[in-house]
Amino acid sequence: MTIKKESKTSGEIIFSGNILKLHRDKVEFPDKAKSVREVVEHSGGVSVIAENDQGKVILIKQYRYPVDEVIYEIPAGKLEKDEEVAECALRELREETGYQAEKIEEIFRFYPTPGYSTETIYIYKAENLEYVGRELDEGEYIEVVPKSREELKELYKNREIKDSKTLIAVMHYLGEC
Amino acid sequence: MTIKKESKTSGEIIFSGNILKLHRDKVEFPDKAKSVREVVEHSGGVSVIAENDQGKVILIKQYRYPVDEVIYEIPAGKLEKDEEVAECALRELREETGYQAEKIEEIFRFYPTPGYSTETIYIYKAENLEYVGRELDEGEYIEVVPKSREELKELYKNREIKDSKTLIAVMHYLGEC
Repeated sequence: MTIKKESKTSGEIIFSGNILKLHRDKVEFPDKAKSVREVVEHSGGVSVIAENDQGKVILIKQYRYPVDEVIYEIPAGKLEKDEEVAECALRELREETGYQAEKIEEIFRFYPTPGYSTETIYIYKAENLEYVGRELDEGEYIEVVPKSREELKELYKNREIKDSKTLIAVMHYLGEC
Repeated sequence: MTIKKESKTSGEIIFSGNILKLHRDKVEFPDKAKSVREVVEHSGGVSVIAENDQGKVILIKQYRYPVDEVIYEIPAGKLEKDEEVAECALRELREETGYQAEKIEEIFRFYPTPGYSTETIYIYKAENLEYVGRELDEGEYIEVVPKSREELKELYKNREIKDSKTLIAVMHYLGEC
């Protein structure tokens, strides 16, 4: 079976905001069937898993308005246009947690919701951290909560890690899978 | 530190489509700072990891327009309003792959992008499958590709699993982590 790839026949931009754009495209399949795609355009997200100097993984707690909940996450931020991904990762780690990392490498890149969003999320692993002080963006209210391997395992087992990037990073860290 | 939870002061609905709604809310923090939240409203997604009668995990391949790529996924679908989640999981598995499952249990629920979307994705594990035939929705072009544990491990190691729910389900399956 060949997988049918649709192509755009027309499109309209519905909204262009601060963090996302929304457009609606009309598409056609090779067999001429037609459909409509509602697409969120997002510039991408970058996140970082790192151990501090006590060997604890640096999680943050943050209220997330869309899900109306305070959740655990790894430090993360929105990729700015034309920004180098690894640099964005280092910057977000430093701004949100105060730690400067010497070494950083990509361990995952994934699509959180490929059915309706263009977003790619990158996960980096950072090493050799030094505390240099936080610089939160205006409107960011973030609590830094370092967790030992045992504490992380408990949070994971109790399904208290609910954010996609954090879940993937923590499973990788715990299982080395 | 107390985590500051913002509250909505006003909101406008920007778009109401087939698969998502978009609204923009003005919010205020306890310290009176103000911000704007662009929120995608989504009714939720349900997905299923299952082995077929040959002990292979049932993946599907599907073109995803927003990311312009054919990707591997586990069978999944959109939760309809007031639909029971486990029933939706059984239905999507049957429609997309042709397998009817006797037993099903939730193994994860997570937020793919809690920064801008309300969506929760559920992952179920299904067991005791029987092939009863597929019933694809109109506009669904899906290839079923069962994978052995070894094949899955290769796909995972080569970072060919790029979809969030599928990555979480496969890591859990492979590592039992």
